[in-house]
Amino acid sequence: MLKIGIINVTGYAGAELARLLYNHPEAQIATVTGRSEAGRRLADVFPHLACYDLTIEPEIAGSVDFVFSALPHAASAAACEPFVRAGVPLVDISADFRLTDPAVYAEWYGGAHPAPDLLRQAAYGLTELNRDAVKASKLVANPGCYPESALLALAPAVRAGIISPEIIVDSKSGVSGAGRGLALNLHLGEAGESVSAYALDGHRHLPEIVQELARMWPPVEAPKPSQPKVTFTPHLMPMTRGILSTCYAALWPGQLPQGEAAKQAIRDLYRDFYADEPFVKVVDAPPATKQTRGSNMCLLYPTVDVRTDRLVVVSVLDNLVKGAAGQAIQNMNAMLGLPETLGLDSPAVYP
Amino acid sequence: MLKIGIINVTGYAGAELARLLYNHPEAQIATVTGRSEAGRRLADVFPHLACYDLTIEPEIAGSVDFVFSALPHAASAAACEPFVRAGVPLVDISADFRLTDPAVYAEWYGGAHPAPDLLRQAAYGLTELNRDAVKASKLVANPGCYPESALLALAPAVRAGIISPEIIVDSKSGVSGAGRGLALNLHLGEAGESVSAYALDGHRHLPEIVQELARMWPPVEAPKPSQPKVTFTPHLMPMTRGILSTCYAALWPGQLPQGEAAKQAIRDLYRDFYADEPFVKVVDAPPATKQTRGSNMCLLYPTVDVRTDRLVVVSVLDNLVKGAAGQAIQNMNAMLGLPETLGLDSPAVYP
Amino acid sequence: MLKIGIINVTGYAGAELARLLYNHPEAQIATVTGRSEAGRRLADVFPHLACYDLTIEPEIAGSVDFVFSALPHAASAAACEPFVRAGVPLVDISADFRLTDPAVYAEWYGGAHPAPDLLRQAAYGLTELNRDAVKASKLVANPGCYPESALLALAPAVRAGIISPEIIVDSKSGVSGAGRGLALNLHLGEAGESVSAYALDGHRHLPEIVQELARMWPPVEAPKPSQPKVTFTPHLMPMTRGILSTCYAALWPGQLPQGEAAKQAIRDLYRDFYADEPFVKVVDAPPATKQTRGSNMCLLYPTVDVRTDRLVVVSVLDNLVKGAAGQAIQNMNAMLGLPETLGLDSPAVYP
Amino acid sequence: MLKIGIINVTGYAGAELARLLYNHPEAQIATVTGRSEAGRRLADVFPHLACYDLTIEPEIAGSVDFVFSALPHAASAAACEPFVRAGVPLVDISADFRLTDPAVYAEWYGGAHPAPDLLRQAAYGLTELNRDAVKASKLVANPGCYPESALLALAPAVRAGIISPEIIVDSKSGVSGAGRGLALNLHLGEAGESVSAYALDGHRHLPEIVQELARMWPPVEAPKPSQPKVTFTPHLMPMTRGILSTCYAALWPGQLPQGEAAKQAIRDLYRDFYADEPFVKVVDAPPATKQTRGSNMCLLYPTVDVRTDRLVVVSVLDNLVKGAAGQAIQNMNAMLGLPETLGLDSPAVYP
Repeated sequence: MLKIGIINVTGYAGAELARLLYNHPEAQIATVTGRSEAGRRLADVFPHLACYDLTIEPEIAGSVDFVFSALPHAASAAACEPFVRAGVPLVDISADFRLTDPAVYAEWYGGAHPAPDLLRQAAYGLTELNRDAVKASKLVANPGCYPESALLALAPAVRAGIISPEIIVDSKSGVSGAGRGLALNLHLGEAGESVSAYALDGHRHLPEIVQELARMWPPVEAPKPSQPKVTFTPHLMPMTRGILSTCYAALWPGQLPQGEAAKQAIRDLYRDFYADEPFVKVVDAPPATKQTRGSNMCLLYPTVDVRTDRLVVVSVLDNLVKGAAGQAIQNMNAMLGLPETLGLDSPAVYP
Repeated sequence: MLKIGIINVTGYAGAELARLLYNHPEAQIATVTGRSEAGRRLADVFPHLACYDLTIEPEIAGSVDFVFSALPHAASAAACEPFVRAGVPLVDISADFRLTDPAVYAEWYGGAHPAPDLLRQAAYGLTELNRDAVKASKLVANPGCYPESALLALAPAVRAGIISPEIIVDSKSGVSGAGRGLALNLHLGEAGESVSAYALDGHRHLPEIVQELARMWPPVEAPKPSQPKVTFTPHLMPMTRGILSTCYAALWPGQLPQGEAAKQAIRDLYRDFYADEPFVKVVDAPPATKQTRGSNMCLLYPTVDVRTDRLVVVSVLDNLVKGAAGQAIQNMNAMLGLPETLGLDSPAVYP
Repeated sequence: MLKIGIINVTGYAGAELARLLYNHPEAQIATVTGRSEAGRRLADVFPHLACYDLTIEPEIAGSVDFVFSALPHAASAAACEPFVRAGVPLVDISADFRLTDPAVYAEWYGGAHPAPDLLRQAAYGLTELNRDAVKASKLVANPGCYPESALLALAPAVRAGIISPEIIVDSKSGVSGAGRGLALNLHLGEAGESVSAYALDGHRHLPEIVQELARMWPPVEAPKPSQPKVTFTPHLMPMTRGILSTCYAALWPGQLPQGEAAKQAIRDLYRDFYADEPFVKVVDAPPATKQTRGSNMCLLYPTVDVRTDRLVVVSVLDNLVKGAAGQAIQNMNAMLGLPETLGLDSPAVYP
Repeated sequence: MLKIGIINVTGYAGAELARLLYNHPEAQIATVTGRSEAGRRLADVFPHLACYDLTIEPEIAGSVDFVFSALPHAASAAACEPFVRAGVPLVDISADFRLTDPAVYAEWYGGAHPAPDLLRQAAYGLTELNRDAVKASKLVANPGCYPESALLALAPAVRAGIISPEIIVDSKSGVSGAGRGLALNLHLGEAGESVSAYALDGHRHLPEIVQELARMWPPVEAPKPSQPKVTFTPHLMPMTRGILSTCYAALWPGQLPQGEAAKQAIRDLYRDFYADEPFVKVVDAPPATKQTRGSNMCLLYPTVDVRTDRLVVVSVLDNLVKGAAGQAIQNMNAMLGLPETLGLDSPAVYP
């Protein structure tokens, strides 16, 4: 059994790693850390993890075969650095190693990058779109939950060269995406029975979406613009888990059949693209986030608004699983040469 | 006191009319009808309306000064027709008199229009944008809840001629918009803790949005397109009341100041546009649907995505009030020469 | 118009006072205070109160005709004291003047009572059960939300002398009862889609329930115990507003007819008891909290478990209205000789 | 691998069986039936079960090693009968084989028992309390969700002979307990943000609770009553999954230490009672239903109201897992001599 260390098990992503790893046949949690909760039993902080006989430590104790960091950005890079330098394979769930350009990081995260020399070693861990790099790397940056949902939704169309780079991503997320920090607007009395938009001046996941779309953008002929121009609007939903992203882009003329046939064509294109992926499924009816709750699945519903010749793709996933801890374990599996589905094949908890 | 008749009080819009009219100082409900519930006491069907001593009748009984119809489409036009022909002023909450072209109606509502000769008499009852026509008409078509939220959000920019007609309306609605008809997907066990998109092949509120945007579209110079091209995606939210619409359109170059100043300019433009409106408020921070629950307010947050030069407007309202019954009473007030705020000035029930 | 001052408008009870008073025909808010928010506009702190043009002050400014205090206990008594001594009529929503015995207060609220000499002037403000005292007093202690629901549910049976004093009150409350203070367990991600019991070692509302039941307990013959023995268990519900209390007590033998007839008899007894009360309604089917949301109504469903000869009474109310701000305004109306329903007769916001 | 048949996979309990069995290492679903959905793919009816390549059949097809029936009562006994007579081991999730007396069944379920001669073969499948009988039987009646929560909460105290038979069970359940049948009161718009009591004239789970409590009641000395006298009140909660039962009973004098020590004593008694049970855990703080969501755990918090000498026990479980499908699989494991935890050891999905 692989010995796993989790840095900052006390956030939602960290606790979700512990939940999922309990059923992993080849890995076992050896040590977990937390900041404010160090010294307490894991089962006392999280009664649903009573299956573990672990105490939360201030630092990773003893030797481990693999490390996950679920710390917030900046703190995470600092905590990851010694393991990376020591050659311990690691997935960082924070944003620290996602943006390849430290200047962009500084602009969006409010400070110089804590370990810029490590950036070149890092692979962007959207396994389905970047598998070779993930497998070849010992430092993988787990995607943000919103980028995960947007990039899986857009990748087949982008790579096929059928959409304009004028893209709108309208995302709806449950409140667990905001973490366990205290905030009045996350109280049930405020967030319940209510919907709101936020971060309209720019959300930190925007540069990540733009970077990855740009990377996968195919070479284009002259008058067409080659850089994605993305508006991304996140919304807070009155629920705990789940992200639904609705993605819009104009179709280049002549790429798809006319009229209703376009819908079938786009669905075929997506099905082909993800044919071998165990965790991405193209569905025939608009999906609901609940269909993925607790599971590592991403469901995609691509269609065409035939009145306006626009691509519309709806994606749903569980922000704590496919959008965080599940994706991280999928990355671990890929990095270690294990089947990617190990520990991740439970159906969603529905209803 | 005006004697009011409500046709089909047993739907959510009808019951909401009864709730709101209870506090109207100049109007009193004289008679209410229902289909399956005829013969029962209103207070037995709706315990929250125990303040009324009314029996649900099969037909409007006795003479009334004003009629609201809250029947579904097709049935509504048939029920309204005798009152319209008799000159009784009426607001129809159904879709029957919203679309000016009976061919468009037939295409979207699946059948010939039941009273096409009345269409020319009907005014589209978005009071803020069509006040003169509402005041001059005895037959007012109450807007759909989604069009209400989208049109109030887009009108100032459209009339100012600053946006491209390539428009995306991404709307999020509570389940009460789907009415009281039995449906498994509306059960709390299915709709709760979940988000989904629906009607991706075209929602009936789309032609209504397009018709009204086209009507308010300013004359444009040659190469610019003059017809709005709208993609509208409704989503079901795990809550009872409320609509939030996020509207996107590219800004024509040179219409607003550059950079951050564009945000203030757009907010000023919206504030000026709605300066005299009691029920539309332009706010300085992204609003939440809960801030309007139970009230007739629509809150607007217009801004500019300065990275992409797109207008983004967020609107929130209560779909059963400003999106249905409250708007209907506002229309009644306007039609009868009463102050529009009568019976409608209660603050939202928050939290 | 009466000039009203609200001390601590920034809690949920204070904000709810402002919401409800907006429609009071004889009263107008003149000044509001807050602690952390002093200096801000009321409309900025609470967007749903944009109808008010008020700044939150550190202290009540200018002369007022009536004061509400919505401060937490201890702080409230201190803030109320000068107004009471100056003869300004006042309703205190905190617990400070509810318990008549300062020793009991000290035991449950963790400190000596801040103004014990005022206790004798205070009336317990459950208007329906203590109207004469409320009308005669200038200092009224508004009941706790749980006691309100339990006492209205039990009073008719207690006064009729038909139940044993062995009483169980099992209460279910929305999260707004816990106020606006930050707490992880109130986050939607924690409290949503979950139910829990709390305060099993004793909730502060228990001595209040016991005190008022003891006060209304009829003289009893020798072997019967004369002091109510109450177990009270509050539960947190995944909703914002509303309390449902289920109250259980054994029936003394021979007081009601046998079998099914007992159910009708108990309902008749309750109907008679509350026949003249505008805000308490005895209903024929088990009620739902939603039927009272936003309104000052308390719905009661009394019945008999004929298999065990137990009285079971279900009561529902909105904890922020009948359980706090609405009851406070009802008390104000009674104290000032106004009709009790002024400003309080809006139907519930359902659904 | 054992070949499993599920009769009526299309209800919530049936679908939950499929979800849980997917991870069972020794069992595999061979065939599933449904009534209205026969002929459809399981993955089309339940997108979260896309992992299965199964078509819903009208009848169990082919030979199977074990059968679960998740049909409603009456229909279930009829469907089970041939398998029972053929000696195929079976767990019936319906109520048909729970009540040992067919007359009681007829009284509560409105008709003669469909297979009274099979009743004597049936074991009541609350594994923790009736393990030997379950292991010895080929026909196990899975407990009702409410009885499961009440009996686990009360058994240690009952068997220890420390409580009076005057018992109150106040239960709070999520809406999934009501199944997938269409009902307006289960719509999110009605059940959301609301709490209600129901079945106050008697719920079908009451005779089941009484029967099992009576069976475990210890022999008592003369003046003490020997038959449990239970009032059971179920409540509908605004959530999908979960039951919390709060159980009350007077303590016989002299059975526990006085004062605060009673609390520790009762907790020790419960800990000892369930010391070897993998799915029942006695916790030190009041639990929340969410801590068990998706898992087979039942968490118990027993305490003493030292002011009134009453036992109060709070139990929480997931009504679809420990209250239905999980318990059924635990029974299957026990019946087949497998470790009871097989397929059931995933932690709860929290938050």
